[in-house]
Parts: sequence; C-alpha cells; structure tokens
Amino acid sequence: MSGSPEFGKLVIFGVGLIGGSFALGLKAAEQVEEVVGFGRSLSTLTQAMDLGIIDRVGANAGQEVADADLVLMATPVGQMPEIMARIAPYLGAQTVVTDGGSTKADVVASAREHFSDKLGQFVPAHPIAGAENSGAAAARADLYRDKKVVLTPLPENPVLNVARVRSAWEWCGAQVHELPPADHDRIFAAVSHLPHLLSFALVYELAVRENCDQFFDFAASGFRDFTRIAASHPEMWRDICLANRPALLDELDRYRAQLDTLRDALQRDDGALLERTFDVARKARRNWADGKGK
Amino acid sequence: MSGSPEFGKLVIFGVGLIGGSFALGLKAAEQVEEVVGFGRSLSTLTQAMDLGIIDRVGANAGQEVADADLVLMATPVGQMPEIMARIAPYLGAQTVVTDGGSTKADVVASAREHFSDKLGQFVPAHPIAGAENSGAAAARADLYRDKKVVLTPLPENPVLNVARVRSAWEWCGAQVHELPPADHDRIFAAVSHLPHLLSFALVYELAVRENCDQFFDFAASGFRDFTRIAASHPEMWRDICLANRPALLDELDRYRAQLDTLRDALQRDDGALLERTFDVARKARRNWADGKGK
Repeated sequence: MSGSPEFGKLVIFGVGLIGGSFALGLKAAEQVEEVVGFGRSLSTLTQAMDLGIIDRVGANAGQEVADADLVLMATPVGQMPEIMARIAPYLGAQTVVTDGGSTKADVVASAREHFSDKLGQFVPAHPIAGAENSGAAAARADLYRDKKVVLTPLPENPVLNVARVRSAWEWCGAQVHELPPADHDRIFAAVSHLPHLLSFALVYELAVRENCDQFFDFAASGFRDFTRIAASHPEMWRDICLANRPALLDELDRYRAQLDTLRDALQRDDGALLERTFDVARKARRNWADGKGK
Repeated sequence: MSGSPEFGKLVIFGVGLIGGSFALGLKAAEQVEEVVGFGRSLSTLTQAMDLGIIDRVGANAGQEVADADLVLMATPVGQMPEIMARIAPYLGAQTVVTDGGSTKADVVASAREHFSDKLGQFVPAHPIAGAENSGAAAARADLYRDKKVVLTPLPENPVLNVARVRSAWEWCGAQVHELPPADHDRIFAAVSHLPHLLSFALVYELAVRENCDQFFDFAASGFRDFTRIAASHPEMWRDICLANRPALLDELDRYRAQLDTLRDALQRDDGALLERTFDVARKARRNWADGKGK
C-alpha cells in the first residue's frame, strides 16, 4: 500500500483559502489522486487550476460526488445548505463529506435536514486557520501545519468515516480535536467571532467619520494588531455571525456588561478597579501566550 | 561643532521602555554626554546602569535638574505631577523639560500648575512607540526609528525649546509631528486608548470564567492579535484611562452605540447591515495598511 494515496477523488466546493489549502496539503502529502473544484466564479476556478489546486473544474455536482472518496464544502456557511441539497441524492455509498465552516450547530442542522438517512456520511469539521486574506491565491500547502482542526462528530457517524476525515486533516499537518457542536460554537463565539465583530465595529466607527484620515494617520502598532481581523472577508463573517447567532448574542451581551462595568469605573475615577481588571487580563494573556509559545 | 554632542546632561525620570530607549537612542547618536536616572525601584535603576541606559543614579532631583540640558519624564502619567512639583523650583534657566506621556491635556494642566512662570520650559510630547513589553530590559536604541512622536507645544514655549525637543527625538530616528493637546487626546482615545480598554475587557471576561482553559485552548491567531495589547502594563493604562477620561468616555460611548446597532442587526437577522458594516471596515483597514506598508 505504501506510495498509494489514501484518497482517490476529492471534490471541493469553494476553492479559496480553506478549500485550496486543504487540496494543496493533500497533494503535497501525495494522498489524493484527483481534485475536482466547484465554485461560483469561473475566474476563481481558472485561477485554482493555474495554481495547481484543482485538476479539473466540475460541471455536474451530482455526477462528481457519486464516485468521490471525499467531499469538502469550503464555502461561507450560508451557501452550504444549497450544496447539501444538490449533492445529497447522488452521494456514493463510500463517499465521506466534510466541511470547513466556522460554526457547527447550524451546519449540523442543515445536514440533518438535507442528508437525512445519509447523515452518517457527513463529518462536520472546523479548521482553525483563518487569515484575513482569502481566495485561491492565498492558499498554501502548509496552512494547516500544527494548526488545530476541530471535528464535531455526530452520533450517526460510523467510526470509520470520522477516522477518514481525521486522517485527511492529519495529512495536512493539523492537530485534530473533537468537541460536541454546541461546545464548539460557544467557544468560538467567545474567542473568535466576538473579537471579529468588535474589531469590525471599531474600524467602521472611525471610517465613517468625516475627519477619519486624521485618526488613521496616528494609528500605530496597537491599532494594527487589534484591527488585523477587521480586514476579514465580509460575506464570510456575516454568515458566521448569523449562523452562530445565539452563542454570539450571549457573548456579546456578556461583553457589553463588562464594558458597562469599566465605563462606570472610569466615570467615577475608580482606578483600582481598572488596574485590577487590566492586571487579571494581562496575566491571563501572558499565560496564554507562554503556553502557546506565541 | 561636529562631533560635539547636542546635549550635555540628560535627566530621566523612569528608566523603563520609553525613557530607556530615549537615552539609548541619544547615546547611539552620540548626542548626549551624561544620563542621570531617577526611579521608584533601586533594582530597576541598577539594571538600567548595567544595560548602559544611564551613567549615574540620581540622588537629589533638584540638584540634578539645575544644570541639566534636558529632562524627560517617562513615568506613568499619574506620577508626573509629583515629579513636576519636585523639580520646578530648581530648573536651570537653560533646562528644557519634556515628557513621554500618552495623554497630553492632563499633563499640560499639571505643568501649568506646577511650572507656573517656567511653563515655557516644558514641551509636552508623546512618542508613539509603546509595546506590550515594559521595563528597562525592553529598551532599545532603535525603538523610535521611523516611529511618530507628537509634540503638543504650548503658546508659552519659545521656539528654541520646541526645536531642542524636536531635535532630540529626531536624533532617535523619530518622525516628529505637532498637534494641539486636545486634538492629540481625542485622536489617541480613539485609535489607542479605546482599543486597549476593549482588549483588556475581552481577556478579563474570559479569564474570570470557571472553565476559561477550554476557551483559551482553542483561541488562535485572530485572538492573539486582538489581545496582544491586553498584555500591556496595568498601572500605565489605568493612568492613561483616567488621565484621558473625557475623550475616552466619549469614544467608549460612540463604540457602545455602534455595538448596540450591530447587536440589533444580529438579533433581527439583518445580514445586509452586518455585511455592509464589515465591508466598510475591511476597505478602511486595507487602505490604512496599504498606506502604512503594514
């Protein structure tokens, strides 16, 4: 078996950063024979061909997934239900489907609806390797190296299907973890989705001011880091926010309550509370960075 | 004159990142003869000696400033009034005082009170080169290279005094700008102080949760960048927040209103508003980064 790729045909919906890097990772590991791409824009698909991400542009989704080993949905999560509806009737018996969506409960709910008795063939996943750059040109074979990928397996998944998806991500160099979908969504609402919303809000609020140039002129490295994620893909993040609405609203409300507390402290000149808050945050941030080696 | 340093004696209050890097920058440019340091902790002063930041530890502040060419207050802004009170009676006629505080209106108000008829000798300044690291060990001669320094000169400042402070910062490699103190404070409340407060708030809110480890475990690069400034110095940022309270409260309230708008949009599933907001932010952030080459 040595030398023979683990996967024959891989079908990718969405050949941007996430899907493209997955294809390139498997190709670099020589673990896929053929990659077929679908996407909304022909120019992106052509670019993905030129970059060696895909070998062919798919024409008929049903036909392509029928004999595929692996199908990855790597589009914004808002587009996944429509893709599921298109491919569900044609899935081959051996085909395993996975996704790269940043939210899981909503994707699982759609999958439950569209895949029905084939639900066991869908193993939900979330690679934690976003970047503010998007598109096929940003894809790279080593994007997932030493990054976390969270699988949120379903009770319906045969162990073998989970193992195949795990294996694919491990060939890309990722560290694979498992979480229940609801835990996944709660955690990422707090550590990813909320920070994105907060960063977008800050830059927007400055950008719509008449004299915004004066502000941007003096923005420095703190602003640069805080707002790096405000350069993220608007449609993708719209979908993530909507898809993870309950958890994100909950996190946003906790955060607003925290801001209210700090505002009150500032208003009444309570330096002790500010310093205590900052000190707890600093220690936690440093511990986190030390643990991550970041 | 070639080869002769522009400044004889420099006296620094606070030999940490800001003051230490200023001293090292002037020394690297061979533009200062002697640097005398004051500070709250003897161990920090000893460290500053060992690192070549200062040549002597000062004992009597009044005596040291009497024949100093330049005095830099590089402590948290909350400590500056007390330093001004200590040195004001003893300032030599040729001595120019400046500071490295991140807020200016409050420092100017203190200076007006303490320096009274010597106010012209105080030229307020703010080097835009903070880092989350602090302390003498973090100081470096090139910290200010190509960084902005904002002077907020007073009507009382003779042109020559402003020129001397400008020159010192230029020897450190900085680009020197001038702003009225109130404009300075408004701008930095928006692009620096508010982001710090927001970043501290996010990390604090997670850190005090019982199950915070689970959250931190899955935090990735977006979180890392958004929270880098939450590792900043708690006392320094307490002082900055309090010192710039009116402008910071104003910016915080604008921001909270913006968050309320986004929360309402999320609640009512208004994806169009979210996407529009994210899109404006993304474009502004990208334009800013392109302009800065960052």
